Amino acid sequence: MPTNHQFRLAARPSGLPKRSDWKLTEEPVRDPGPGEVLVQALYISLDPAMRGWMNEGRTYIDPVEIGAVMRAYAGGRVVASQNPAFAVGDHVTGVLGAQEYALLDSAAAKGLNKVDTKLVPLPVYLSVLGLTGLTAYFGLLEVGQPKAGDTVVVSGAAGATGMVVGQIAKLKGCRAVGIAGGPEKCRFVTDLGFDACIDYKSENVIQALRKHCPNGINVYFDNVGGEILDAALANLARGARVVICGAISQYNSKEIQGPRNYLALLVQGARMEGFVVFNYAARYAEAAREMAGWLVAGKLKAKVDIVEGFQTFPETLLKLFRGENLGKLLIKVADE
Amino acid sequence: MPTNHQFRLAARPSGLPKRSDWKLTEEPVRDPGPGEVLVQALYISLDPAMRGWMNEGRTYIDPVEIGAVMRAYAGGRVVASQNPAFAVGDHVTGVLGAQEYALLDSAAAKGLNKVDTKLVPLPVYLSVLGLTGLTAYFGLLEVGQPKAGDTVVVSGAAGATGMVVGQIAKLKGCRAVGIAGGPEKCRFVTDLGFDACIDYKSENVIQALRKHCPNGINVYFDNVGGEILDAALANLARGARVVICGAISQYNSKEIQGPRNYLALLVQGARMEGFVVFNYAARYAEAAREMAGWLVAGKLKAKVDIVEGFQTFPETLLKLFRGENLGKLLIKVADE
Repeated sequence: MPTNHQFRLAARPSGLPKRSDWKLTEEPVRDPGPGEVLVQALYISLDPAMRGWMNEGRTYIDPVEIGAVMRAYAGGRVVASQNPAFAVGDHVTGVLGAQEYALLDSAAAKGLNKVDTKLVPLPVYLSVLGLTGLTAYFGLLEVGQPKAGDTVVVSGAAGATGMVVGQIAKLKGCRAVGIAGGPEKCRFVTDLGFDACIDYKSENVIQALRKHCPNGINVYFDNVGGEILDAALANLARGARVVICGAISQYNSKEIQGPRNYLALLVQGARMEGFVVFNYAARYAEAAREMAGWLVAGKLKAKVDIVEGFQTFPETLLKLFRGENLGKLLIKVADE
Repeated sequence: MPTNHQFRLAARPSGLPKRSDWKLTEEPVRDPGPGEVLVQALYISLDPAMRGWMNEGRTYIDPVEIGAVMRAYAGGRVVASQNPAFAVGDHVTGVLGAQEYALLDSAAAKGLNKVDTKLVPLPVYLSVLGLTGLTAYFGLLEVGQPKAGDTVVVSGAAGATGMVVGQIAKLKGCRAVGIAGGPEKCRFVTDLGFDACIDYKSENVIQALRKHCPNGINVYFDNVGGEILDAALANLARGARVVICGAISQYNSKEIQGPRNYLALLVQGARMEGFVVFNYAARYAEAAREMAGWLVAGKLKAKVDIVEGFQTFPETLLKLFRGENLGKLLIKVADE
């Protein structure tokens, strides 16, 4: 049997996770027992939410315990199974952890999704057709409630969720304006069909929003928090909806910067609403079907940013917080 | 004819309004011309929102111009009229300004409400049955959407709006918890029928909320902003509604303190929504009827805090920001 390598949480980080916050361990892979399934990871998903899972204290989910394998979504291939629901060669996605092999008992195996890599490549099941895409779908459509003709603004527009939000907004007849860092990202965003992209590294975001949203913002989908959230609040239209999906600019801060312009909610009769995609679990299949339809029809583009090598995990994760990824960030662990 | 005294805005305040930010002027009162009505002010309403109207720039309403009579709601008696809709002796409420006499043309007179002081004393028409009460009514019921059994928390609970919010919450079958400053205010709040009152001056608000709201806060009605808003956000129940009515702790600050705990909205799938009562103008009459019914039935108590003397206006206004008022703050300008 091969050897399994794992990234375990060694310490709760203060600020950006350091290499010393991780412990790389190895252990032999064992054969599955009754009901168990052994999955070899092929791609590991890197998600901003991971930073929150490393902190102490329960939020919407339990924290990763010190010494435990880091929680991670991943896609892989079944390499051994004593579970009748899975056969060797099946491709699956699910919470496999930051490790090369995951041995799941029958309860954990129920959380796996079998996917057909002949229809769509495995990375896409971790991106547009995975939790990232579902986050964009439910956050925009259910929380943001866009109407045709609305102006939808999304921050982190070149990121995994943001790129999908803007594309769905366009599909629903909205004007889509992205905010991203740097000309390469902005080019990527407008190539996806967004009406405009604001480069927060070189533009005054408040003024640029005023220019690109002359009637104000109807839906603002926030992935970043901080100054950009405040700039959006300063440009809300009456009755606007602000969707709080994440706050990547704040996850490594000792103290969260609250939105100073929150009284714009009062002036504009607007609302700010948060959500966690898990709350829509009962409707994942429905949403994924609609997204797959758009994907196959060429109406929705998926971009994955793939870094090779399991052992790069600690450094690759930091790319998210440094804004170095274009589209969905994945680590390729092994050849398919 | 008598002489009219007026408080005009002399300068835009930085921080708490100083006496020098006001100019006391006098001018003779003149007889009404065709369509005009002359109202003698009896009570002037003091409202936290006034501070915002003194700043430059339009929000939900135009600012008061430098040199103009300060905008103020007031109740008074018609002393002369060439408007067929108003007779001498009628009692009215409306935007009369911070002055002893208001001469309104026919367009402005359309904004006056005739009130029957034989049914309810004039101060109550500026309090529970006025914009303050309507603010509580629509903010709680329309924005907060409380359900029977919910825990409703309100800050500024001993203030004009807060005291009404908690009482309506009780009428709707909710648990009502107030937050106020000092034992006298807290006694007042519990005497009104609130289930509990937290004294933010002597208690740790986060811990006290945890104690009084063991299942979390379902509706939080915020009049104050700042640290207390953050404490409430730290105690939200799943799907909570945070109603942003005001932020009196912030109105005199150079820089607004944004809610650092706003990511609780994400974790709890909660929303924060602002409103301005003017948006519900079409339903004022309906709401006032229901409130009057509660009032007459003894189910809703009104408390007014009356300061004598028009010339106290600059100092009396500061009582709001120093938290020195109990219930609705009014200036008595003249005997009825």
